Amino acid sequence: MKQVRIAVLGMGRQGQIHSKNIAYRIPEAELVAVSDISKELAGKVGIDGVDLYDDYRKILERDDIDGVVIATSTDTHEEVIRATAQAGKAMFCEKPIATTLEAIDDVLGVVEKAGVKFMVGFNRRFDPTFSRVRSLVEDGTVGKPMIVNITSRDPQPPHLEYLKVCGGIFFDTTVHDFDMARFVSGDEIVEVYATGSVLVDERIGELGDLDTTMVTLKFASGAVGSINNSRKTGYSYDQRVEVFGDRSCAFAGNETPTRVHYVNPQGTHSDVPLYFNIERYPEAFYGEVKAFVDCLVNDSPPPVTGVDGRKAVVLSMAARKSYEENRPVPVSEIG
Amino acid sequence: MKQVRIAVLGMGRQGQIHSKNIAYRIPEAELVAVSDISKELAGKVGIDGVDLYDDYRKILERDDIDGVVIATSTDTHEEVIRATAQAGKAMFCEKPIATTLEAIDDVLGVVEKAGVKFMVGFNRRFDPTFSRVRSLVEDGTVGKPMIVNITSRDPQPPHLEYLKVCGGIFFDTTVHDFDMARFVSGDEIVEVYATGSVLVDERIGELGDLDTTMVTLKFASGAVGSINNSRKTGYSYDQRVEVFGDRSCAFAGNETPTRVHYVNPQGTHSDVPLYFNIERYPEAFYGEVKAFVDCLVNDSPPPVTGVDGRKAVVLSMAARKSYEENRPVPVSEIG
Amino acid sequence: MKQVRIAVLGMGRQGQIHSKNIAYRIPEAELVAVSDISKELAGKVGIDGVDLYDDYRKILERDDIDGVVIATSTDTHEEVIRATAQAGKAMFCEKPIATTLEAIDDVLGVVEKAGVKFMVGFNRRFDPTFSRVRSLVEDGTVGKPMIVNITSRDPQPPHLEYLKVCGGIFFDTTVHDFDMARFVSGDEIVEVYATGSVLVDERIGELGDLDTTMVTLKFASGAVGSINNSRKTGYSYDQRVEVFGDRSCAFAGNETPTRVHYVNPQGTHSDVPLYFNIERYPEAFYGEVKAFVDCLVNDSPPPVTGVDGRKAVVLSMAARKSYEENRPVPVSEIG
Amino acid sequence: MKQVRIAVLGMGRQGQIHSKNIAYRIPEAELVAVSDISKELAGKVGIDGVDLYDDYRKILERDDIDGVVIATSTDTHEEVIRATAQAGKAMFCEKPIATTLEAIDDVLGVVEKAGVKFMVGFNRRFDPTFSRVRSLVEDGTVGKPMIVNITSRDPQPPHLEYLKVCGGIFFDTTVHDFDMARFVSGDEIVEVYATGSVLVDERIGELGDLDTTMVTLKFASGAVGSINNSRKTGYSYDQRVEVFGDRSCAFAGNETPTRVHYVNPQGTHSDVPLYFNIERYPEAFYGEVKAFVDCLVNDSPPPVTGVDGRKAVVLSMAARKSYEENRPVPVSEIG
Repeated sequence: MKQVRIAVLGMGRQGQIHSKNIAYRIPEAELVAVSDISKELAGKVGIDGVDLYDDYRKILERDDIDGVVIATSTDTHEEVIRATAQAGKAMFCEKPIATTLEAIDDVLGVVEKAGVKFMVGFNRRFDPTFSRVRSLVEDGTVGKPMIVNITSRDPQPPHLEYLKVCGGIFFDTTVHDFDMARFVSGDEIVEVYATGSVLVDERIGELGDLDTTMVTLKFASGAVGSINNSRKTGYSYDQRVEVFGDRSCAFAGNETPTRVHYVNPQGTHSDVPLYFNIERYPEAFYGEVKAFVDCLVNDSPPPVTGVDGRKAVVLSMAARKSYEENRPVPVSEIG
Repeated sequence: MKQVRIAVLGMGRQGQIHSKNIAYRIPEAELVAVSDISKELAGKVGIDGVDLYDDYRKILERDDIDGVVIATSTDTHEEVIRATAQAGKAMFCEKPIATTLEAIDDVLGVVEKAGVKFMVGFNRRFDPTFSRVRSLVEDGTVGKPMIVNITSRDPQPPHLEYLKVCGGIFFDTTVHDFDMARFVSGDEIVEVYATGSVLVDERIGELGDLDTTMVTLKFASGAVGSINNSRKTGYSYDQRVEVFGDRSCAFAGNETPTRVHYVNPQGTHSDVPLYFNIERYPEAFYGEVKAFVDCLVNDSPPPVTGVDGRKAVVLSMAARKSYEENRPVPVSEIG
Repeated sequence: MKQVRIAVLGMGRQGQIHSKNIAYRIPEAELVAVSDISKELAGKVGIDGVDLYDDYRKILERDDIDGVVIATSTDTHEEVIRATAQAGKAMFCEKPIATTLEAIDDVLGVVEKAGVKFMVGFNRRFDPTFSRVRSLVEDGTVGKPMIVNITSRDPQPPHLEYLKVCGGIFFDTTVHDFDMARFVSGDEIVEVYATGSVLVDERIGELGDLDTTMVTLKFASGAVGSINNSRKTGYSYDQRVEVFGDRSCAFAGNETPTRVHYVNPQGTHSDVPLYFNIERYPEAFYGEVKAFVDCLVNDSPPPVTGVDGRKAVVLSMAARKSYEENRPVPVSEIG
Repeated sequence: MKQVRIAVLGMGRQGQIHSKNIAYRIPEAELVAVSDISKELAGKVGIDGVDLYDDYRKILERDDIDGVVIATSTDTHEEVIRATAQAGKAMFCEKPIATTLEAIDDVLGVVEKAGVKFMVGFNRRFDPTFSRVRSLVEDGTVGKPMIVNITSRDPQPPHLEYLKVCGGIFFDTTVHDFDMARFVSGDEIVEVYATGSVLVDERIGELGDLDTTMVTLKFASGAVGSINNSRKTGYSYDQRVEVFGDRSCAFAGNETPTRVHYVNPQGTHSDVPLYFNIERYPEAFYGEVKAFVDCLVNDSPPPVTGVDGRKAVVLSMAARKSYEENRPVPVSEIG
């Protein structure tokens, strides 16, 4: 069964999740090695028979590894991708590819030259609910998409320290929704208009960032769309998608912990949605790594490419520019 | 447009509802007269151009009336039906036809001999939700019914005075559900087993009655079913039906005042069902009288007959006997 | 019970609905007279004891009438409002007040000088579902509104003849949603950005109009919002509202004809939403006229004023300008 | 972290599931060994560092194992439990304990004398949805249970070979629902009445078995209940529970693969429920074994005991007797 040998670089929360999925849930793959600058953290993965490294370059030197999962800190992605490409290994990389468009283009050039498989981690595409909406578009059930509405709100804002380095809400949050809009519609976004406010926490505003935003989308086909984001719902993760087409309107709703409801004189009561991405997307985290393994096993192209990663960043840039200049920005203005 | 001329006998709550539906919502019918032993009550209908009587027999003497709606007190039904039949007028009568099986049979004989149209008021058959379930059975969507489950619970028990004269929960409440079971399944019930308790109010037990019951149904086709009743939910009227067939399972859920829900950290909250029959069944009250008018206009047979009224009573008797003797009772044992 | 005497001017579909609600469902009001330029049409109301006119001015001359409902054709509103104000009668007027901002301002001046009550017919405010969302905002359940999303899509486009004179989608459709956004949020819209396409019917584009639109809203509080409209769903009327606040997120969903669902191997199936406004808003049509009667009976201010009517038009103008110039338009730019 | 060492006996489908949960998802436990009469099957578990045996008695001889999970074939349970008790090891055993009441009593005596922890595998108690209903009863949200309705229907009947040896629908299917009824209500069933038919497959009837059943429950508190079972829905596993109490009515609904729905002119469409127990209960399978480990780690009593296992069998016997004699059977008649 084991056909591909994988290593995971970076043993933070996401690296741990990927490691366990590879080791326990994907019979076609073997988890051979993991690395983290803290070997102690690497050791926490606790899976029998996995080699631990504190330098990911040692892993890249090994001949017996087919692909790597890059889950190191965001600021190292560029360097690790280059090194992995030069080592001639296939790779799955968490977004973003790099922090500037120039760096992204340069890195994608290196990857292309190396001729290695490269997949970007937009996990939500692999969530059963969102991927089913995509299927309903693909199989014609929805018809021609005309309106795409995306709601994407976090239960609580991240720590201020994170907010300072995350690049702002458009790059940190909306970027996923731009990819989702492209994914479910099968269409390209040609213009965006972004507006927003600081309604959750003044300190977010002091960082020059927003916490509540609305982005209008114009697609190549003429379809229109909206993405609304908030850094804080209070209740839980609110992740919904609607695609209105000329044959039907499809909705992806929130998952809940149980299917219980009860009726009392005050009303009918059911669960809040699952709390956050860890609770909401275990199957998507599994699915994306499974897809990466599949494209190694079958020698097929990755389902999410470097171009997809680049496009989401370009759209985030357009949104930021739109907000700053308070005008719709054609995506062609960027990069 | 006006093709039939109708009178309503009895101006209690139900008589008022029927009067308004005839006068305002059924263009084919004209409300010509109403009666009540309290002429003051009759006057409360407040519809222009309607003649008021304190003796229903004066209405029956009029030649210009095609049909009557009998909404007088339960203990008068037998007498009023006889008189109406003898006057040769079509009639719609609230259930029950009479209070003993002998009386029912006798009355139905009189009606048959008179050759007048006779419709019994099982309003729920005309509720859009329940009648849609029936349609799904009729058109084959459900397939052959195999299990029928009915939930029928009141928000609050009636007054003790009413409880004393209503004949007990099987005759007052389950009787509707027996008719519903026959209606949605298109099948006949051949055996019942009834059990129950006094869990809501001890005084109900002191009357020899029950307030919480479970009746098992066996149908001629071999299908099985259950009816659960309660005199008190606290929240509202709980009226649901499920028909499980060999092609699908169909559900009739409760109606709510609005389609609002909200999510907060405590859960997702929506409305309680509509409070009681007045709130829940306005369209059913309209629909049954409309059906009566239609069968006069089109000279077609009534959709709910005296036989249907009789069968529901027989089933209630079987349930009572089953409970008293704690054994399943073949319906053929009764009447 | 009858405390106010009302006449309805214009016996089109909406005038007929208002007439029946006043005559049959509002005991405090008496329907005294109706008018239509076609006396035959006026006669179709078919309510006993109502005087019919072919000239509404005859009605305004009567001393025994307290208020009028103006349901005449759109192009006559301005003239009829003026005449009614001069006759010193309270009035409920279907939107729009007039077709230009100058005319609206002039007419509102006349009404104010006359000192008569004036209510504008934004019926959706009186829909039980939408008014419940407003209540959840008002009572603090939702908290401070931060995002307002409105979906408003028609089942089928109107006839081309109507499309030619309706003023375009922003004035004909979005205008209701602008009012809804103000109503549910309790906030004022200060800037709009509108984009859209012709995806439903090319002939709509040939008229210089759009059939699929997305309008971004910026509120005075900093809240953001979106309104998406379509002239054609194919399935039915799709009218939903979401208010996301700092305490909860409230949703108004679509109503359906029944509460039936069934499960078969192909899925779980339930009703489409109610077809169009006649099916969806009977209670809202009743509620708005009841509110008008109430403000006469109680001598209280109308719940929807001329200023509300004007604001919705101003917002529609801003949306149109935004679309034409492809830029966000501060509402203060208009009027 | 590893505090208890576990072996799994029997490597059929369920044994494989338990093994993986212990090895991969329960850090407090270590999977030390597995056995199966087919060592090849034992090898299929494919977990590094686990010893494989073809004779479970070799495992019982080891001193370094704290507890065993018994997932061997049903007919061996009795023997394996005895051997495990004599080896002084804690055990988790799939139901049933044994095939006759005498054997169950004898085995439970052996277990008690040995003083080892003994837990029976009624997995549904550990399903998040059903356990939440139990919590709502326990914390008083539901109030005093008055009516308990359980729906439990399989997507497809098992093979005829299995049907021949499974003991009949009451022992194979309803047994789980009897336990669920006791679990969610916290009450004891004192009388049952069972009826049923052969509507799915005549061959089931030829075996003297039923495929469609309705069991009425009477609880010690006076509460009533119903359990309806079917061997075939066609659509999927239909597992629902309703507890109606004097404060609220709680419902456990079916889980679905996604939260997608779409609206087209034919209706609103969503998923069928998850297909069968493997799809529906992964968290329950995990939860029951986790609970077993927890009671070893904490030296606490097992949450599902031999007495619970015995009671479910007694209730199944009472149901069978009730069906055969077509009369309500007091549970005290059995055993």
